[in-house]
Amino acid sequence: MAAERDPEGRAAARPLLTDLYQATMALGYWRAGRARDHAEFELFFRRCPFGGAFALAAGLRDCVRFLHAFRLRDADVQFLASVLPPDTDPAFFEHLRALDCSGVTVRALPEGSLAFPGVPLLQVSGPLLVVQLLETPLLCLVSYASLVATNAARLRLIAGPDKRLLEMGLRRAQGPDGGLTASTYSYLGGFDSSSNVLAGQLRGVPVAGTLAHSFITSFSGSEVPPDPVLAPAAGEGPGVDLAASVKEWLERVCAHLGLGVQEPHPGERAAFLAYALAFPRAFHGLLDSYSVWRSGLPNFLAVALALGELGYRPMGVRLDSGDLLQLAQEVRTVFRATAAHFQVPWLESVPIAVSNNIDEEELARLAQELVSVGGQPRMKMTEDPEKQTLPGSKAAFRLLGYDGSLLLDLLQLAEEPPPQAGQELRVWPQGAQEPHTVRPAQVEPLLRLWVQQGQLCEPLPSLAESRAFAQLSLSRLSPEHKRLQSPALYQVALSERLRALVDCLRGGGPL
Amino acid sequence: MAAERDPEGRAAARPLLTDLYQATMALGYWRAGRARDHAEFELFFRRCPFGGAFALAAGLRDCVRFLHAFRLRDADVQFLASVLPPDTDPAFFEHLRALDCSGVTVRALPEGSLAFPGVPLLQVSGPLLVVQLLETPLLCLVSYASLVATNAARLRLIAGPDKRLLEMGLRRAQGPDGGLTASTYSYLGGFDSSSNVLAGQLRGVPVAGTLAHSFITSFSGSEVPPDPVLAPAAGEGPGVDLAASVKEWLERVCAHLGLGVQEPHPGERAAFLAYALAFPRAFHGLLDSYSVWRSGLPNFLAVALALGELGYRPMGVRLDSGDLLQLAQEVRTVFRATAAHFQVPWLESVPIAVSNNIDEEELARLAQELVSVGGQPRMKMTEDPEKQTLPGSKAAFRLLGYDGSLLLDLLQLAEEPPPQAGQELRVWPQGAQEPHTVRPAQVEPLLRLWVQQGQLCEPLPSLAESRAFAQLSLSRLSPEHKRLQSPALYQVALSERLRALVDCLRGGGPL
Repeated sequence: MAAERDPEGRAAARPLLTDLYQATMALGYWRAGRARDHAEFELFFRRCPFGGAFALAAGLRDCVRFLHAFRLRDADVQFLASVLPPDTDPAFFEHLRALDCSGVTVRALPEGSLAFPGVPLLQVSGPLLVVQLLETPLLCLVSYASLVATNAARLRLIAGPDKRLLEMGLRRAQGPDGGLTASTYSYLGGFDSSSNVLAGQLRGVPVAGTLAHSFITSFSGSEVPPDPVLAPAAGEGPGVDLAASVKEWLERVCAHLGLGVQEPHPGERAAFLAYALAFPRAFHGLLDSYSVWRSGLPNFLAVALALGELGYRPMGVRLDSGDLLQLAQEVRTVFRATAAHFQVPWLESVPIAVSNNIDEEELARLAQELVSVGGQPRMKMTEDPEKQTLPGSKAAFRLLGYDGSLLLDLLQLAEEPPPQAGQELRVWPQGAQEPHTVRPAQVEPLLRLWVQQGQLCEPLPSLAESRAFAQLSLSRLSPEHKRLQSPALYQVALSERLRALVDCLRGGGPL
Repeated sequence: MAAERDPEGRAAARPLLTDLYQATMALGYWRAGRARDHAEFELFFRRCPFGGAFALAAGLRDCVRFLHAFRLRDADVQFLASVLPPDTDPAFFEHLRALDCSGVTVRALPEGSLAFPGVPLLQVSGPLLVVQLLETPLLCLVSYASLVATNAARLRLIAGPDKRLLEMGLRRAQGPDGGLTASTYSYLGGFDSSSNVLAGQLRGVPVAGTLAHSFITSFSGSEVPPDPVLAPAAGEGPGVDLAASVKEWLERVCAHLGLGVQEPHPGERAAFLAYALAFPRAFHGLLDSYSVWRSGLPNFLAVALALGELGYRPMGVRLDSGDLLQLAQEVRTVFRATAAHFQVPWLESVPIAVSNNIDEEELARLAQELVSVGGQPRMKMTEDPEKQTLPGSKAAFRLLGYDGSLLLDLLQLAEEPPPQAGQELRVWPQGAQEPHTVRPAQVEPLLRLWVQQGQLCEPLPSLAESRAFAQLSLSRLSPEHKRLQSPALYQVALSERLRALVDCLRGGGPL
C-alpha cells in the first residue's frame, strides 16, 4: 500500500469491523490449508435503489483507507482468541498477527460512476483468508456510500443544476459515523454543502448553516446588546447604533405592511439583531419561529433594511414549516413590494431557502420556484446485494453509440479480448432469451485497477473531483433512464462466453 | 466530569460532529454577551416509532462519553475559524478553546427505560453557548440508539423470551459506526448477540457467527484436508480419519433418504468437513448453498453423524432462503426420522436457525416454531423530534396503580412538589379537553441526575444491566400498550400548572 499519510484512515473502519462468521470461516480455511488460496469477490447490487434505473458508485476512498490501515493489533487478535474455541491452534493467531493487505488487489468503478445492476462496483482479490475478512467492512463502506450518493443524485436531478442543495441530516443520522458518511456522499452525489462540521473538517465537504429556532426562542426581547454599534460595510464613515436603526425601520415596515408595531415578537427581533451584529455580511432570517406574516417577515425586513443602509446585504431567509412553496411565493411578493416601496432593489432578490422533511415529490414541486433547498436526504435501504454471483473473474465495459449515448454495459470473462469499437458483437442482455447484436462506436473499460498487491496504482481523485465526475456521468445518461419513477431499465448484457458459463453452471453440467 | 478511563470516548463522537448553525449561533450568543446565560434543552419525540405505543430510551452512555471527552482542540478551532467570517473577533475563538462540559448537567431516563411521547429522554442544562454546541451530537447519539433499541424490543416481544435472536446487519449498516451503534443497541433492546466483532470488542456485546455461503462455494470437493484425523471429544482413545468416516456416513445417509450418493455436492461436503475439523465442538451447517434436500441436508447429516461417533454434538443448522418456516419444519421431520433410524437421539433436537430479511411479520410466523432467528433489524427513521417544546424546566413521574400497573406518565414544572402516593391528583392527558383524576399507589421519578456540573453522579449501568432493565421495564407495560399494531396509546399527562403555562403561551398572553 502506498505510504501516503492518512490521519483519518483508522477513523473509516477498524479491522474488527467484520462479522464473526468471517473470522470463523478464516479459521476454517486455515485449518484446511487454504489460507493463501487465491480468491476474489465482487460487490454489486441486483436492483437499483429508490425504484430508479441507475446508481452512483461511491465509497472507494474509504475502502482504500481501510485497506491501507488494515492490520490486526495484539488486542484484536486477543479478542478473536477469546471468542474462538479455546483449543484453537496458536499458529492460527500468529497467522492473523502477520496479516496485511500487501497481497490484495482492487478493481473498481471510479467514484461517481454510473453503476447498473450486476456490474461490479468493486472486485477484490488476494489470499482467501484475508479477502474473506475484508468482505464485510468493504460491503459496509461501499453499500451505504453508494446509496446516499444515488439518493443525492436523484434529488439533484429534480432540483436541476442551479439550485443550491444543503444536507442537514446529522441529528437524525444512524450514529456519529452514519452522519459523517451521509454528509460526505450526499456531497459526492450532487449536494452543494452540508451542515455537518466534521464532514468539512475531515472530508473537505463545504459546510453551511445559519441559525435555528432555538436561537430565536432563546431571546425574550429584554436583552441589551453589549455593543450595538456597527461600522458601514465599506469600512468608512462613523458607526451606527444598529438597535436604534432597527427600531426605526420596524415602524416604517409595519406601517407599509399594515401591522401594529407591537405585533412582531420582540425576542425574535432581538435574535435577528444579535445575529446581524455577529454576521453583518451573512445575515440570515429564519422566519417561522412565531408567525411568518406578523412577526418573522417584518422583523427580518427591519433588520435587513437597517443593515442595508450601512451597505450590507442579507444572505437570505429560510422557511421551515407549512406549505413551503406557497409561503415562499408569498414572501417573494412581499420582498418585491417592499423593495419598490422603499426603493431598495436588492431586496427583490434576497434568496429564499426552505427546509423540513423535503422528499423527492416535495422537491419537484419546490424546484420550479426556489433557489435553495435544505433538508435531510431520505435514506432507504432498498438495495439488495446479490447472494449468488456470476461465476468467474469478470471484466466490464460500457458500450457507446455514435452520438455518445450509452448503449449498454457488457460483462464478460476477464480472459476474453475486450470488445472493439466499430465491430459487431453478439451479447445477451440479462433476462433476455435471445442474443442482441450491437456495434459500439466507443468502448470504455469500467473497472479500474486502484490497488495492486497492496500498492495504490494511481492517486484517488479528490471528493470534489468525484462529485464533478458524478454529474458528468449523469449527463451522459439518456432521459428515459434518468427518470425517477418507472424509468426504462438500462441494459446490462453478458458476453456469449459468460452466458454459456452461467447456463452451464445453472444446469449443473461440466464446464 | 469523572476521571474514569474511557479509551473509546473519542470513538463515540468528536466535538465538531455538530451542525454549522450551532457554531454560528454560538458566535451570535457570544457577540450578544449571552454565552454564559443558563440554558436547557430537552430531547423527546412526538410519536412512537414503528406504529407502536412505546419506545426504549438508549444512548445515554454514549452521551456521557461524549461530554466527558468534549474539548475543542486547536485544529478544531482553526477549522471553525476557517468557515466563520474572517473578521470574527479572535476573543470568540479563545472562548471556544477554553470550553468544556464542567458546567453541564444532564438528567435522563436510565437506559432501557420505557419512553413515551413528550416525556424527555434527556435534559441538558448549562451555559447557553456550550449547550447549543452539544445539541446536535447528543440528538444524534440518542435518537438512533433509542430507535434501534425499540426495534429490537419489538422483535423480542414477538419472539418471546426464550428464542435466540442474532443481529447480523453490519454489511448493510449506515457506515462503520452506524453498524457499531446498531449492534450495540439491538443488544440493549433484547437481542442475544451480534455478528459484529467490533461491537464485542468495544462494547461487550456477545458475538456469534458460524459460516456463510462464500465459505461453502469456495470448496470444489477436490481439496484434501492436510490433517483429517480428529481425536474423540472425551480426549481418550485413538483419533479417527474424519474424511473417511464422513464418506461412509454419506452412503448410509443417502440410502436412508433415498438419494444417490453422487447427488450431494462434493464441495459443500468438503466445506462442512473443513469446518468440522476447525470447530469439532461447534460444527454448524448452512444448508441452502445448493439444494437443501439433495445436498445440504445429507452432507450435514454425514458430517454430523461422523462427529457424533466421536462424541461431538453439532451446534445446529441454518436456512437462509426460501419459505423459512416450512423448510425448518421439514428439516426437523428429517432430523427426527434420521435420529430414529440410526438410533442417535441427540439428532432430533439439533437447533435450526433461520435468517434472510426477517421482518416483524415473518418473525411472528417463525416464532411459533423455531429456536433461533438471525437477521437484520429493520431500521426506519419514523421518529419525529418535536420542534416546539413544552415550556419551562420540567420534571417527569410515572404513576402506578395498586396492582403495579402503569397508569400514566406525568409532566410538571420542575418547581412543583412531586405527586404523592395515595393522594388524588388532577392531570391533563395530552390532547384531552378535560382533566382526569388519578390516585397513584406509587410514584416513580423518571429523570435521574447523571451528570452535575460536569461530574458523573453515579456509575452508569453496564450494557448488559441496561439490557436486563429494558426487559424488566417492558414486563410492566400492559399488553394493550405492548401490542405492535394499533396499540392503545399510553397516556402522558400534564400537571395543571404546566397545562396552564402551555395554554397561556399558546394564547400569547402574559404568564
